[in-house]
Amino acid sequence: MTDLAPLTGAAAERSDPAAPVEHMKWWGWGVPGVAFHHEDKPAFAPFVLKAVGLDLHAVRPLDQPDFGAIDVPASIAGGDLRAALADAVGAERVRDGDLDRVVHTYGKSIRDLIKVRAGRLPRVPDLVVYPADETAVQAVVDVVVAHDAVLIPFGGGSNIAGSLEPVPNETRPVVSLDMGLLDRVLDIDEGSGLARIQAGALGPALEAQLNARGWTIGHFPDSFTHSSLGGWIATRSSGMQSDKYGDIADITKGLHVARPGGLLELRPSPSASTGPSVKEMVLGSEGRLGVITEATVQVHRTPAKRVIHAYFFPNWRAGSRAMRQIAESDVHPAVTRVSDGRETGFSLATSKESKGFSGLAQRGLFAFLKRRGWNLDEMCLSFIGYEGAPDHVAKQRRAVERIVKRNGGIGVGTGPGVLYDQKKFDTPYLRDFLLDRGTAGDVSETSVPWTGLDRMHDGVIAAAEAAYESIGRKGWIMSHLSHSYHSGACLYFTFAFVMGEDPEAEYDVVKHAIQQAFIDLGGVPSHHHGIGVEHAEWLPDVLSESGIGVLEGLFTATDPGRNLNPAKITAS
Amino acid sequence: MTDLAPLTGAAAERSDPAAPVEHMKWWGWGVPGVAFHHEDKPAFAPFVLKAVGLDLHAVRPLDQPDFGAIDVPASIAGGDLRAALADAVGAERVRDGDLDRVVHTYGKSIRDLIKVRAGRLPRVPDLVVYPADETAVQAVVDVVVAHDAVLIPFGGGSNIAGSLEPVPNETRPVVSLDMGLLDRVLDIDEGSGLARIQAGALGPALEAQLNARGWTIGHFPDSFTHSSLGGWIATRSSGMQSDKYGDIADITKGLHVARPGGLLELRPSPSASTGPSVKEMVLGSEGRLGVITEATVQVHRTPAKRVIHAYFFPNWRAGSRAMRQIAESDVHPAVTRVSDGRETGFSLATSKESKGFSGLAQRGLFAFLKRRGWNLDEMCLSFIGYEGAPDHVAKQRRAVERIVKRNGGIGVGTGPGVLYDQKKFDTPYLRDFLLDRGTAGDVSETSVPWTGLDRMHDGVIAAAEAAYESIGRKGWIMSHLSHSYHSGACLYFTFAFVMGEDPEAEYDVVKHAIQQAFIDLGGVPSHHHGIGVEHAEWLPDVLSESGIGVLEGLFTATDPGRNLNPAKITAS
Repeated sequence: MTDLAPLTGAAAERSDPAAPVEHMKWWGWGVPGVAFHHEDKPAFAPFVLKAVGLDLHAVRPLDQPDFGAIDVPASIAGGDLRAALADAVGAERVRDGDLDRVVHTYGKSIRDLIKVRAGRLPRVPDLVVYPADETAVQAVVDVVVAHDAVLIPFGGGSNIAGSLEPVPNETRPVVSLDMGLLDRVLDIDEGSGLARIQAGALGPALEAQLNARGWTIGHFPDSFTHSSLGGWIATRSSGMQSDKYGDIADITKGLHVARPGGLLELRPSPSASTGPSVKEMVLGSEGRLGVITEATVQVHRTPAKRVIHAYFFPNWRAGSRAMRQIAESDVHPAVTRVSDGRETGFSLATSKESKGFSGLAQRGLFAFLKRRGWNLDEMCLSFIGYEGAPDHVAKQRRAVERIVKRNGGIGVGTGPGVLYDQKKFDTPYLRDFLLDRGTAGDVSETSVPWTGLDRMHDGVIAAAEAAYESIGRKGWIMSHLSHSYHSGACLYFTFAFVMGEDPEAEYDVVKHAIQQAFIDLGGVPSHHHGIGVEHAEWLPDVLSESGIGVLEGLFTATDPGRNLNPAKITAS
Repeated sequence: MTDLAPLTGAAAERSDPAAPVEHMKWWGWGVPGVAFHHEDKPAFAPFVLKAVGLDLHAVRPLDQPDFGAIDVPASIAGGDLRAALADAVGAERVRDGDLDRVVHTYGKSIRDLIKVRAGRLPRVPDLVVYPADETAVQAVVDVVVAHDAVLIPFGGGSNIAGSLEPVPNETRPVVSLDMGLLDRVLDIDEGSGLARIQAGALGPALEAQLNARGWTIGHFPDSFTHSSLGGWIATRSSGMQSDKYGDIADITKGLHVARPGGLLELRPSPSASTGPSVKEMVLGSEGRLGVITEATVQVHRTPAKRVIHAYFFPNWRAGSRAMRQIAESDVHPAVTRVSDGRETGFSLATSKESKGFSGLAQRGLFAFLKRRGWNLDEMCLSFIGYEGAPDHVAKQRRAVERIVKRNGGIGVGTGPGVLYDQKKFDTPYLRDFLLDRGTAGDVSETSVPWTGLDRMHDGVIAAAEAAYESIGRKGWIMSHLSHSYHSGACLYFTFAFVMGEDPEAEYDVVKHAIQQAFIDLGGVPSHHHGIGVEHAEWLPDVLSESGIGVLEGLFTATDPGRNLNPAKITAS
């Protein structure tokens, strides 16, 4: 993470040194001791001032929240349950400390951070358990059901859809099952390109174990550094290179799920016609069908060549049209991404003075584009990634660049792509930096058929702006196309506003307006973040009431006692 | 169908001229009036003699079965149900004639044909309805549930897994819902490559409507001429070009399903993270969740160039290794297929004297290969299909041919591929030709990771041969690799034997041995034929008991009265 700075003092300390696995900050994203800073990015403060009216030179950042000032409800777990869980996982791996329980209360959405920093904790897990193997996970599931408690699986804790939080008025004991100790690549079938991996493995650990033997899973969501294989599966994650490697639903070939009464084992298969897909029921199930303990995933040899090229398009229409033309061509890049003019401005503003776009070359380029009649505020930055044998990469690039040219675009080489590659996981730190300064930032994403794409882009921005108007706050929204498919694409929106009197209510208005626009304009509530509680309201719009009935039937039949992360995805 | 002959006389007559849609022969595959013949294929009779010991010159074919000689149980449908269905679809579209009911009793597996020809009809649908639109289908579903009857959806009737037959001891009225009148392409979103199509459309009608506007669905299962879009979805079908276009699960983007109480509508989306996939529950559901009335599928512009090249490999190991190397390369052909030595012999034997492999060129080639040390009995024929812009096709072909050469293979041009393309849907007619002559032929398929592929190939053949031995019949089995994926492939087996005293029992022994070998050697019960009742026995082996519990939970919750094609896929 080239663009982040180490912290010192209290902020650098590990949250809970005694915990069996390292957690993220209880009050924010990422590793304690790392934060975003902007001192070497001269265009950043002016950009923020213009976008949301926040003067970074005038605002005083909040102090790190004091955990001691927070009132944590006492655990209601009884002795029987504790003893049975201790039998299941070992006494030292059953924990009920306040910090441990608060870390497992929420994910890392902006709403989660606002609440946890304010000490708003209507329901905290009563116990946190850290099973060390699959047998222990299975034992926990059976203990929880036998004691009519509630089980919430916890991977890296990066969720932003409310999938990890207990039901506020839950009267039964709530157990958070932290999968962090199950982090190993168990086996690689090198002849088939299949790897068996424990579900608690976080992105970096998983990828390091694969890379050591020459393989990659090719799955790099924004949350990569702090999300787990099991979490990716439980939420139907997509990664930055999913155009080539597939979404996690494509990558997953076999599964183990600890379910009440015994392990669900789905034999790995390249493809099968074996009735309704149980695998596709577990995918996206957010804990409601049990705890994913292991997956067999397809893996690829690390490519001989991998490169990301940057292009500029004169405007959004040209950029999105080029992405569609690439998708319908014979070419299949690993990354197809284009930012709108707003996000392009943001990217330029977060560049360091000496690197990437900020150098003299850039100023020369921009002057040239201006002379060609480009409006630099509308200009759109695109990244296209190529992978494979060198001649394959060269061919793909030539084919893409014909399409870029046909749409008035221009290539600017690999420099920005290298920076993008290094910085791609840093955005949540920037989000926390802004939150420390009274500004709420968040993301929402959808997918839509190509014919509705531009209308979706413009409509969501209009809806957000109307929402800002209605709450009387100056706000910002920007977007990029992040994944391309044959029939459409994912649009990813980032939005921010300086918080007023009631940040949660203000956020609700904006978030609601964006999600409703997704639905009204032919999209889905989420392309890869999941449903949880945040997006459940819009699920009937895309599944119909009958579809919700099917989902609820599945949940009720497989978990009649509502012990498995209840009220996520659907209310019942 | 270049290789089939028209029949004359009684055999040429349409089964039931008064039926609202044309059906296949009640006693066999395909259009009345078309049959396989071998008079212009001089190598065919010697091949059959060698393979199964049947002398085609000595055997007298059976006469076409006489429908009048068959005893059809009377319909038990009462007046209330009939009246309500007449209200739902129109009185003229509710039929109870014996021929109509028998046509809807079975699919077209060899077991189905043996039974129907023998007049073995333990349970025949009591009524057949032909709704003309989605509203009428929904009304039928609701009527059937309200009257506690049983509903079995019927597309083209090509199923070979027993998915269409009523439960033998069913005491409630059984209604077969023939989707044949819902056969239109409703809309093409040309900007997104998405088409809305009624689920009853058979392959040729669907493709003709798309082709007329320059599009193709790219889905060509062996059953193409007599299978429907809804049937493909309900059984998780794959087609010959699925390597490029995807299996039907990949192609399907939105769905309408008539379910008790109302229509299930899944909004078309390129990709979505909206909980457990309801779409993937409907896929493969064989009627147990309701009746698929419409799908939004991805469609492609008909490619500028499409060509199938043939190659020979010296043996199976070389051929299967080449397919794996193609799958792990940067190249993605539309078809990757290789037959084993046995099936290659069969293909050569079914060629006409004057065409394809049978000409002088072939004999010259084979002499040359012999001189190079090839054992012609082990030689394997492969077809690789290329599609796209001409330069893309050329590049793909060059890359594939480097792999072919590296594995000792040799290209023999496009001639055999043209013949393959023309004849690819004819095999079921040949199957019926053999059945008329006392020989049972059938197919079974599985998928398996690459590392287990050769072991699966050899193990299934050994299992079939042991089964033939145990029943004391001379039998034949041959195989091809039909679909390639990153992590493995589909192996497709065709087997045949001259029937003895108890054909059904003999068939059971052979079929059981093959399916059990699939499981024992790391495969799945079916790659694309579905489960029905034929393959249900092996489902727990790949889903585990817990997975079967999840499936049964889904079925019980969504169809508590067991009105929707009960006892398919799982017993309860």
